[in-house]
Amino acid sequence: MSKVITDRKTDINQWYQDIVANAGLAEHSAVKGCMVIKPYGYAIWEKMQRALDEKFKATGHVNAYFPLFIPKSFLEKEEGHAEGFAKECAVVTHYRLKVDPEKKGSLMVDPESKLTEELIIRPTSETIIWNTYKNWIQSYRDLPLLINQWANVVRWEMRTKLFLRTAEFLWQEGHTAHATAEEAVDETVKMLGVYADFAENFMAVPVVRGVKTPNERFAGALDTYCIEAMLQDGKALQAGTSHFLGQNFAKAFDVKFAAKNGGMEYVWATSWGVSTRLMGALIMSHSDDNGLVLPPKLAPLHVVIVPIYKGSEGLEKISAVALQMKKSLEEKGLTVKYDDDDKFRPGHKFAEYEVKGVPVRIAIGERDLEKNLVEIARRDTLSKETISIDTAVEHVVALMDKIQQNLFLRASERTAQMTTQVNSYDEFKAVLDEKGGFVSAHWDGTSETEEKIKTETKATIRCIPLNNPEEEGKCIYSGKPSKQRVLFARAH
Amino acid sequence: MSKVITDRKTDINQWYQDIVANAGLAEHSAVKGCMVIKPYGYAIWEKMQRALDEKFKATGHVNAYFPLFIPKSFLEKEEGHAEGFAKECAVVTHYRLKVDPEKKGSLMVDPESKLTEELIIRPTSETIIWNTYKNWIQSYRDLPLLINQWANVVRWEMRTKLFLRTAEFLWQEGHTAHATAEEAVDETVKMLGVYADFAENFMAVPVVRGVKTPNERFAGALDTYCIEAMLQDGKALQAGTSHFLGQNFAKAFDVKFAAKNGGMEYVWATSWGVSTRLMGALIMSHSDDNGLVLPPKLAPLHVVIVPIYKGSEGLEKISAVALQMKKSLEEKGLTVKYDDDDKFRPGHKFAEYEVKGVPVRIAIGERDLEKNLVEIARRDTLSKETISIDTAVEHVVALMDKIQQNLFLRASERTAQMTTQVNSYDEFKAVLDEKGGFVSAHWDGTSETEEKIKTETKATIRCIPLNNPEEEGKCIYSGKPSKQRVLFARAH
Repeated sequence: MSKVITDRKTDINQWYQDIVANAGLAEHSAVKGCMVIKPYGYAIWEKMQRALDEKFKATGHVNAYFPLFIPKSFLEKEEGHAEGFAKECAVVTHYRLKVDPEKKGSLMVDPESKLTEELIIRPTSETIIWNTYKNWIQSYRDLPLLINQWANVVRWEMRTKLFLRTAEFLWQEGHTAHATAEEAVDETVKMLGVYADFAENFMAVPVVRGVKTPNERFAGALDTYCIEAMLQDGKALQAGTSHFLGQNFAKAFDVKFAAKNGGMEYVWATSWGVSTRLMGALIMSHSDDNGLVLPPKLAPLHVVIVPIYKGSEGLEKISAVALQMKKSLEEKGLTVKYDDDDKFRPGHKFAEYEVKGVPVRIAIGERDLEKNLVEIARRDTLSKETISIDTAVEHVVALMDKIQQNLFLRASERTAQMTTQVNSYDEFKAVLDEKGGFVSAHWDGTSETEEKIKTETKATIRCIPLNNPEEEGKCIYSGKPSKQRVLFARAH
Repeated sequence: MSKVITDRKTDINQWYQDIVANAGLAEHSAVKGCMVIKPYGYAIWEKMQRALDEKFKATGHVNAYFPLFIPKSFLEKEEGHAEGFAKECAVVTHYRLKVDPEKKGSLMVDPESKLTEELIIRPTSETIIWNTYKNWIQSYRDLPLLINQWANVVRWEMRTKLFLRTAEFLWQEGHTAHATAEEAVDETVKMLGVYADFAENFMAVPVVRGVKTPNERFAGALDTYCIEAMLQDGKALQAGTSHFLGQNFAKAFDVKFAAKNGGMEYVWATSWGVSTRLMGALIMSHSDDNGLVLPPKLAPLHVVIVPIYKGSEGLEKISAVALQMKKSLEEKGLTVKYDDDDKFRPGHKFAEYEVKGVPVRIAIGERDLEKNLVEIARRDTLSKETISIDTAVEHVVALMDKIQQNLFLRASERTAQMTTQVNSYDEFKAVLDEKGGFVSAHWDGTSETEEKIKTETKATIRCIPLNNPEEEGKCIYSGKPSKQRVLFARAH
């Protein structure tokens, strides 16, 4: 197997694409903007889904499913929301094809099947869901309503990047309804915590928890909370958002409830989502020049065992040990593959599993076996050690935690190293161009300044970190007084 | 809680709708033809998904995800397939809305965003998947390719019935590629077996395994295998299909492989799917005039414990016992709810959990408690017994199997009773009108006769059962010789 992954220092975008392609994660489809998520990529996404779903359920949420289609008039009802999504909508206008009378073997849209009202493929489901909640919520007894949906959504995108930006993507969207603003804010913050916990403890990706500036808010939200990750290319990625929607959607869809102390009130709302973008964050956080690196908690395959043998007699001896080891590791909850395929040589297999990011590789050779030894290789550090077969299982099980922790530590150190405090606009621009990463700087709090910085440098305010310390300072752009630093970065 | 479910004998369609509504399973959405799957309904669907997914993986399949959109030209490539689906396609023609200059606050389709080629919302994914497989398959070493997808699909329907027939539905679709016809046929039959096993052992719904007549085949298939269930309304439901697609899609998308013994050959294909229709089959198989009845293997909630008490002191004593019992049952793998909500009286709660089909209800009253007794009610038989607290957990755990088996037995007996052999067309029509169900009759094997019977009676050939015994006879319609009986029915 020849070297298939471009080095990061040569071309980090090509490196990312090479990993996505060669690890079998995803590819561009024949439909512009849409991707095919390949089996290995989907297996990682399934692990993400399972872990997130358990967390949602543990925090009292239930799943449901709402229509793919949103009537155009629904989108019009919440003005900010409409403005935010109208420009990137796939629109269904007809419901039938017919044989083209002028072109044999061709189909054409049947003009007689034109819809009276166009349907939008959901870019997000607030409108159709709040239209439904109207019938589900009458009294405070019906609240809170804590619902999540796993679904595909479409936001028309021309310049796509696998996982990070695609026209169709998979996600979950939570939509909750509450009797008070305070409860809704609590929910918003709670779900941000769930996301941050998942990112850090499952993905091993450290994130900054923060609040978006008004400019960067979700269309229709009063407040958007977010988790932001710093990737190896020096760009930030918004990895998840949780929105406090106030009563905007309740008012747009007339959803009121009989309050406990009498009177009808509008319901308070939140929504929160993470998507297959997380796959992009995962890939670009940990991988190296040899390929994908996966945290054990999300690896579809934890351990691969590769036999190194000459004749069939040697293989038999190795297989006996390997299969016993596989069984023992599986009993400890690990997923293990014994690759005794005779079509490929060990070196080829080593490279293949490295590209795929399998956390641990065990190589069993004939000579080692005679000494009761096996070789164990860690994917995260690329280090190898030869240890006794008797302790191998225990050792590998312990490695899972170590690798998980090491990846988080490594990414945390990188994020810290990639976060720079600056005190002038010159310094700000220099850091962005030469180093990248998060830039912590004073800002005067106006959208005007934010816009100008964005236009001039392509950097946006990723967030105002939660629990941000107060600090007197001057805006790097306008020189006006500022009470806190915010995090800027160029972003995906 | 007043009686909310219409009796079956009064109006079986209304009965079905009442159950779907009152058990909180689904409802019609604001978008014509599309349903909202409510949390309790979705929880059952999740259990189905989980069980099926495990079976798919156990038989060597992996999941992946392909685009929602299919270019119109793809649909044209396989003629039979195009004919079958063209008339019920949602068509995306534009990708942007804009503010309507003539109507303040309104959005309109931006005419400048017209797509050069229209996109179809997938009604099924053979075309987009085989277009992708073209790049994945070069050699016999790449085969078999055993892939499944969980997705939403759209087939435009005007006359909808929740779960049984909706424009958008959720399903899984397996798409496999093989080197030989024999392997592909084996896969087709194997997956039919997986479906039948799931239907019978999880849903407790007996099914007839069979093959469709050419008329009823999937558009683009050489053979369609199916499982057919008989519901309480006397109508059949096609509960799952598995198609042998031959080389049709490989030829349409030019997918060839280098064979082991040299030369390039077209790949052999199968596809197979089950959908949220299964929810309809489940509901209409087991439910009674009190509401939904669920087999324990698919029940989101296995046991509900309801306290019957007067004062808070009584409740405390009951709660101590109830919570201990809940814990013990949960340790046995059951999902248990202790409903000590003080807003509703026990009778109201009993009715609610009956409507929702919770398999077992445990009532704990103060007087019973003094005698160390609890009352256990089975949802399937509506029978109650009072037993010692000491044996209650063991008893309830055993009941799960008993209920699962009883439901299957009951449905099997009903299906047998609803299957009638007839030997004349008059008898055939009389049975259809007076009794319904499956009608086993001789047929001459021609599409012409099949069509005429369908037009005259609305009954279709549901399938030619697998392992059908040979039997000399005469076609009930044409009088021509026939070698076997086939199963007719009116169907959903």
